[in-house]
Amino acid sequence: MNIPKVNNLKRVIIIGAGFAGLQVAKKLRRDKFQVVLIDQNNYHTFQPLLYQVATAGLEPDSIAHSIRNIIKETKNFFFRLAFVHYISTKEQKIYTNVGNLSYDYLILATGSITNYFGNKNIESFALPMKSIPEALNLRSLILQDFESALLTKNDKEKKRLMTFVIVGGGPTGVELAGALAEMKRYVLPYDYPDLDIQHMNIHLLQATSRLLDGMSQKSAKQAYDNLKELGVIIWLNCLVKDYNGEIVSMEKNKKIESSNVIWAAGVKGAIIKGFSEEDIEGSRILVNDYLRTIRYKNIFAIGDVSYMNSNKHYPNGYPMTAQPAIQQGNYLAKNLNCVLCENKNIKPFVYKNLGSMATIGRNKAVCDFPYLKLKGFLAWIVWMFIHLVSLVGFRNRVIALTNWIIQYFHYHKSVRLIIRPFHRKKKII
Amino acid sequence: MNIPKVNNLKRVIIIGAGFAGLQVAKKLRRDKFQVVLIDQNNYHTFQPLLYQVATAGLEPDSIAHSIRNIIKETKNFFFRLAFVHYISTKEQKIYTNVGNLSYDYLILATGSITNYFGNKNIESFALPMKSIPEALNLRSLILQDFESALLTKNDKEKKRLMTFVIVGGGPTGVELAGALAEMKRYVLPYDYPDLDIQHMNIHLLQATSRLLDGMSQKSAKQAYDNLKELGVIIWLNCLVKDYNGEIVSMEKNKKIESSNVIWAAGVKGAIIKGFSEEDIEGSRILVNDYLRTIRYKNIFAIGDVSYMNSNKHYPNGYPMTAQPAIQQGNYLAKNLNCVLCENKNIKPFVYKNLGSMATIGRNKAVCDFPYLKLKGFLAWIVWMFIHLVSLVGFRNRVIALTNWIIQYFHYHKSVRLIIRPFHRKKKII
Repeated sequence: MNIPKVNNLKRVIIIGAGFAGLQVAKKLRRDKFQVVLIDQNNYHTFQPLLYQVATAGLEPDSIAHSIRNIIKETKNFFFRLAFVHYISTKEQKIYTNVGNLSYDYLILATGSITNYFGNKNIESFALPMKSIPEALNLRSLILQDFESALLTKNDKEKKRLMTFVIVGGGPTGVELAGALAEMKRYVLPYDYPDLDIQHMNIHLLQATSRLLDGMSQKSAKQAYDNLKELGVIIWLNCLVKDYNGEIVSMEKNKKIESSNVIWAAGVKGAIIKGFSEEDIEGSRILVNDYLRTIRYKNIFAIGDVSYMNSNKHYPNGYPMTAQPAIQQGNYLAKNLNCVLCENKNIKPFVYKNLGSMATIGRNKAVCDFPYLKLKGFLAWIVWMFIHLVSLVGFRNRVIALTNWIIQYFHYHKSVRLIIRPFHRKKKII
Repeated sequence: MNIPKVNNLKRVIIIGAGFAGLQVAKKLRRDKFQVVLIDQNNYHTFQPLLYQVATAGLEPDSIAHSIRNIIKETKNFFFRLAFVHYISTKEQKIYTNVGNLSYDYLILATGSITNYFGNKNIESFALPMKSIPEALNLRSLILQDFESALLTKNDKEKKRLMTFVIVGGGPTGVELAGALAEMKRYVLPYDYPDLDIQHMNIHLLQATSRLLDGMSQKSAKQAYDNLKELGVIIWLNCLVKDYNGEIVSMEKNKKIESSNVIWAAGVKGAIIKGFSEEDIEGSRILVNDYLRTIRYKNIFAIGDVSYMNSNKHYPNGYPMTAQPAIQQGNYLAKNLNCVLCENKNIKPFVYKNLGSMATIGRNKAVCDFPYLKLKGFLAWIVWMFIHLVSLVGFRNRVIALTNWIIQYFHYHKSVRLIIRPFHRKKKII
């Protein structure tokens, strides 16, 4: 892969430039390691705001940041735009679409991918929202369907085009449902005066008995009430069985006709080929208390793809969100930096839950912090502030804030553009 | 096309929502006409700034604006997202991918498309830059080629990947060359420290003996000097004969090896099928002094697609730029609004040249106004101001200005993201 080996420097390959990968890449000491960061994109994606890209609130470029710009320092650092398709733990080598490279240490920070639980129909017809191109596809589709609804004289088809089904009542599903409901209220009636906006329905389907499973009961209730108020139809204890591009089938023979199903019902670890069943648990890479894989001393896994089940509060591993990823990246960098002082007592990783948040819409959000629960306007301000400061790059913060301020006063979503039309795999006419 | 016909109201169909089409659509009186605006995109593109999208200076969403948002008024106005593939002048009907529609008056404002002068090779291998997706393709390609240059050990290939050839020394070519030269100076050496930036060459090829043919000799000389200073290699009197994806062939057997050829050498009118040779001149629709087509009393052509040759200063028709388009849109709306007072004396269209401008880079631009010529910093400030106020939408102006201010102080292009990789039609490896 055209990277020179330097004497006396161990080479660390980090796969993935998400929250975890970036963190460890930033913190590793360049005098001890040659750091090679690999990602299939040349930018870091701020995933918590993807739903705003999908609903025309933010331009994609303000939640993405060039990786080469984030890690500018040149000494012993290399970024390569590549897709890793195989890891040979025996040869200590990664194989990519642009050549292979050997490692002394390997850090898996590959994140997660959408989990369709094996349902091929849903995978074919429902839209995921895990990446910027996917969010843009969704933005295009929402707008295209309204354009199509204008043209059809068939009422059933019109209704189907204007019905949105979001599967999954976690933060992504809740935030997306809220943003769509706001489009219904403030934007679409003005853009499409010929359409009867009452035909537009937003369904939120959740498999368990409550929304926001990871948050407090109080916040879940608040989110439920807020969404109801915005006109979202919420289905609890509702398991989706199938989707054929036109009809969502649920248990007990319930059905919804919809052309737009957004799948936010689950993720799984993005595991690269080369690991065996012993290494994997719950679709993630099993690690010990030091984030080290069970069988390979020099391979680590952090972030969504890492599975640590020793903490009794998290028997199914840590939540697949930004917080554990950042903390694990930090922790692992510290440990590896200490590689020459290995006699020192290294403490196991401890996750510190800093809280969780979800926004439902204008002036509406919920925040659960360890000693404080917020809702309403205050929660919304806190949500915005924390997301702004977490965005990577000064420019992105300024642009996102500017957009939010303008939207707050103008009530409209500025970027409702179909830059690249989305073509359904199966055409529904 | 599902648009109700209203009694006593003539229907005007406008094809194209560029500068000309938007202008006439905004100004036509709704009490006299039912206005139907058709475009293949749901947004208006501010084409003068496309080159900044291609060179990672502005996000695409800040030079595009939702058409439904620009023309909000609902009374007797309809927008349809459609591609018109045929016009039946006999039936007075347009045929589109989403159905057909009859007109009382038809306004052609379809703009222009890239002119490859019949060379299929160039069309296959060179990149155009007439639309937002094309500018984004170019942005992706520039960045992808640098990533590829990092990986190759073949020096010849590396040089080819880092060589950019811009064909056409009009405002587009000049502005693009300047922006690329600034990337070479301020951005790429920091992003790609492993690459020897001296391998990067930017060639600007112009068929005539000077740059900026439409502007004054003085401004052309200034642009030439500024580009030279920035390191651009300028070829005058240089006619490109062919390009095979790797080698640009010019007259007198001259050659340049390059993977990136950008074609800014010409445009032609975007003519929809249904017109005959009599209606067309110089690849545009021939019109009389009232912008009316020669053979059809109720069909008009405005903007780039319109060809009026009665003005002796413009024997080959008006320049295919924003100014004539906007003025013609305005003029035609006024005339049509007067349709019920046709006895009044209608004056022929007169083009008022407000001047032209081109920016070469940081603090460098040239402006030719009727009684004033500017260059350098002042010209650059004027250029920015005029482009800012011409951008459609308050948000777009604020976002573009913010980007420019940040870039001015940070010296970097913020949006160097490969959101959707560009796949060459023919792979060059």
